[in-house]
Amino acid sequence: MQDLLIRGARPWGGQTADIVVRDGRIAAIGPDLPAAPGAEIVDARGCLAIPGLVDAHAHIDKTLWGTPWHPHQAGPSLMDKINNERQVLAGLGLSPEVQSARLLRRLVACGTTHVRTHVDVGPDVGLTHLHGVQAMRDKHRDWIDIDIVAFPQTGVMIRPGTLDLLEQAARDGAEVIGGLDPVGVDRDPKGQLDGIFAIAGRHGCGVDIHLHDRGDLGAVTVEMIAERTRSLGLAGKVAISHAFCLGGVEPARLESLIALLLENDIAIMTHAPAGPTPFPPIRLLHERGVRLFSGSDGIRDTWSPLNNGDMLERAFLLAYRSGFRDDPGIEVALRMATYGGAQVMSVADYGLTVGSAADLVLVEAETASEAVAYHPPRRLVLKRGRVVARDGRALLPDSE
Amino acid sequence: MQDLLIRGARPWGGQTADIVVRDGRIAAIGPDLPAAPGAEIVDARGCLAIPGLVDAHAHIDKTLWGTPWHPHQAGPSLMDKINNERQVLAGLGLSPEVQSARLLRRLVACGTTHVRTHVDVGPDVGLTHLHGVQAMRDKHRDWIDIDIVAFPQTGVMIRPGTLDLLEQAARDGAEVIGGLDPVGVDRDPKGQLDGIFAIAGRHGCGVDIHLHDRGDLGAVTVEMIAERTRSLGLAGKVAISHAFCLGGVEPARLESLIALLLENDIAIMTHAPAGPTPFPPIRLLHERGVRLFSGSDGIRDTWSPLNNGDMLERAFLLAYRSGFRDDPGIEVALRMATYGGAQVMSVADYGLTVGSAADLVLVEAETASEAVAYHPPRRLVLKRGRVVARDGRALLPDSE
Repeated sequence: MQDLLIRGARPWGGQTADIVVRDGRIAAIGPDLPAAPGAEIVDARGCLAIPGLVDAHAHIDKTLWGTPWHPHQAGPSLMDKINNERQVLAGLGLSPEVQSARLLRRLVACGTTHVRTHVDVGPDVGLTHLHGVQAMRDKHRDWIDIDIVAFPQTGVMIRPGTLDLLEQAARDGAEVIGGLDPVGVDRDPKGQLDGIFAIAGRHGCGVDIHLHDRGDLGAVTVEMIAERTRSLGLAGKVAISHAFCLGGVEPARLESLIALLLENDIAIMTHAPAGPTPFPPIRLLHERGVRLFSGSDGIRDTWSPLNNGDMLERAFLLAYRSGFRDDPGIEVALRMATYGGAQVMSVADYGLTVGSAADLVLVEAETASEAVAYHPPRRLVLKRGRVVARDGRALLPDSE
Repeated sequence: MQDLLIRGARPWGGQTADIVVRDGRIAAIGPDLPAAPGAEIVDARGCLAIPGLVDAHAHIDKTLWGTPWHPHQAGPSLMDKINNERQVLAGLGLSPEVQSARLLRRLVACGTTHVRTHVDVGPDVGLTHLHGVQAMRDKHRDWIDIDIVAFPQTGVMIRPGTLDLLEQAARDGAEVIGGLDPVGVDRDPKGQLDGIFAIAGRHGCGVDIHLHDRGDLGAVTVEMIAERTRSLGLAGKVAISHAFCLGGVEPARLESLIALLLENDIAIMTHAPAGPTPFPPIRLLHERGVRLFSGSDGIRDTWSPLNNGDMLERAFLLAYRSGFRDDPGIEVALRMATYGGAQVMSVADYGLTVGSAADLVLVEAETASEAVAYHPPRRLVLKRGRVVARDGRALLPDSE
């Protein structure tokens, strides 16, 4: 692959610099770098350069992307939405491989270079979603990096056979084992958590648990997750997604939960949920040192039509919902959508430094905060040094 | 002006139709319309057509748009932000005429065809902001329609001379008289409200009052506004902006406030504020028949860097903050950013019907809800039949 020289970009809004991309990596960053013979030259015209956006909590197996508009019809509760989804998906008969590939085009256009996706695993769908997304991933390795969480969307203990399927998913290559409201959905937190942590321990997987349960119900679950993280030596490999409870417990209880998160190096994912739903206090957690990351959650699916897969806009929503106006606060939101997600996905060579993979996004903005505030169409997106999107359009061939 | 024939648009997501634009108005809408000789033909390729977006609560006189990024530094309270703004603006010495013209380009690019802007009037700035924005408006009448609210940003009764300035603003052509937290800022609700309503009554102006005061403080103020609306016969000409209190009073009190709003035909503006700030319950108010509208509030100013002037994204934020997932809810949000604002601005010839002014936006989406969810760059914007923006870029000459 020929060299690429990006002239006049501003990494994370800092001083103007050139970026040399060679063999898929950042080979040099600095002012006025010489172009190697035959190098392709891109004039960044002062655009901000940020590392590839990381959507570290998505559900790409069951998006309705690319199909006719589906008006949302589910009832208000979590179980309403789960049941509605099973009904709608069974009726539509969509292919997880095809749907996730359709969505890929949008993700690439938005500058997302890494995805952690929760893929439904359960008695009704078996491992078909897992295998479908794996097939999509195999075909699109040059476009995006995908990690898969085997996700028991319909519950674990209330759906006999689910634990066996999760174990099989781990054998089949799922990187992470998921969970879902061990109290609220299963009413058996010990059963679910012992089950999924045992599988993760046996297969060397990470754990990433959806926790919508609020208040003390959620807080107790955080404590139970921390206990198992410690006893199995999984510190640094466990995440809690949503964790609404962190936005709704008494300050003293919150402090004790933060201590547990830090002791066990448990990461927290929030996508800044819609509506009045409480969500984790981002600035406080960041200041305490808790690892934070974000994702789109379900993109145009039966859960909500509003999430649109743009992680730069997601950073805006994190800031907006948190009431951040200052640059440091807004940048915490952007870090959640970049470095935070890369860290939880254990991406070794991520960033804006020499030697990192050249997963880069150019965006017309003066500062990181401005990029978040306006989230304009991405000027250019590189995946391992290759241009994969330009001016808001993915360059995937139509056949893909 | 030659005719324009828009082929294959879908008005508000309905059946595909052609739209004939003649002399700045919609001359015909229907399937397979013939092109007049010499007509310019635009292929809408199935885009949604919506009427021009209406930003009916902005502060275009004091935007920092087009100037170097200004990190937000104000303290948390309302008075902190007012004082910080005076200090920053005095230091920067920006021209309201130049700044509002800079922002115009962004508004046009986003498909905004009508703006109600609150323009600072007070002892420190006198009427310079008013005259500056009027001068900008005079030069750009073909690009956008602007109504001006004379807005006492620094308070009324606590700043002697302000009432006289508001009266002079009305004489100088301000369409609407503004107010600001008669209790919270002035501590003299009777004085402020009697004063501004008297001016509005004398000059035939509307009234639009910023009301941030929460809970019972705000509720009492709503009651006092309703009393004066009734006694001066101003029903249909009064709006309350922000009205946080409607999102934070007991249900019974809320119902009594709704009854007052309906009796006096008082409209409510919310822009879905950032952070945990309570805001009016949109669906409930809409179902009760209260007129609702929206705006950007301050766009990239010292109050917040996050508001970016895109009213289609604003409709998304209204839906997102309200937790709307269903199409009817999402469409209420879009109506606030279109018909609701046009109604409060008394735009007589607004809409998607034959005879309306051809203020139109084409956007690549299948349904109104999809347009809100993805708010992609506007494909085409017409102002009175003239193309003023294309593919997200305003067509204003660089000199303007």
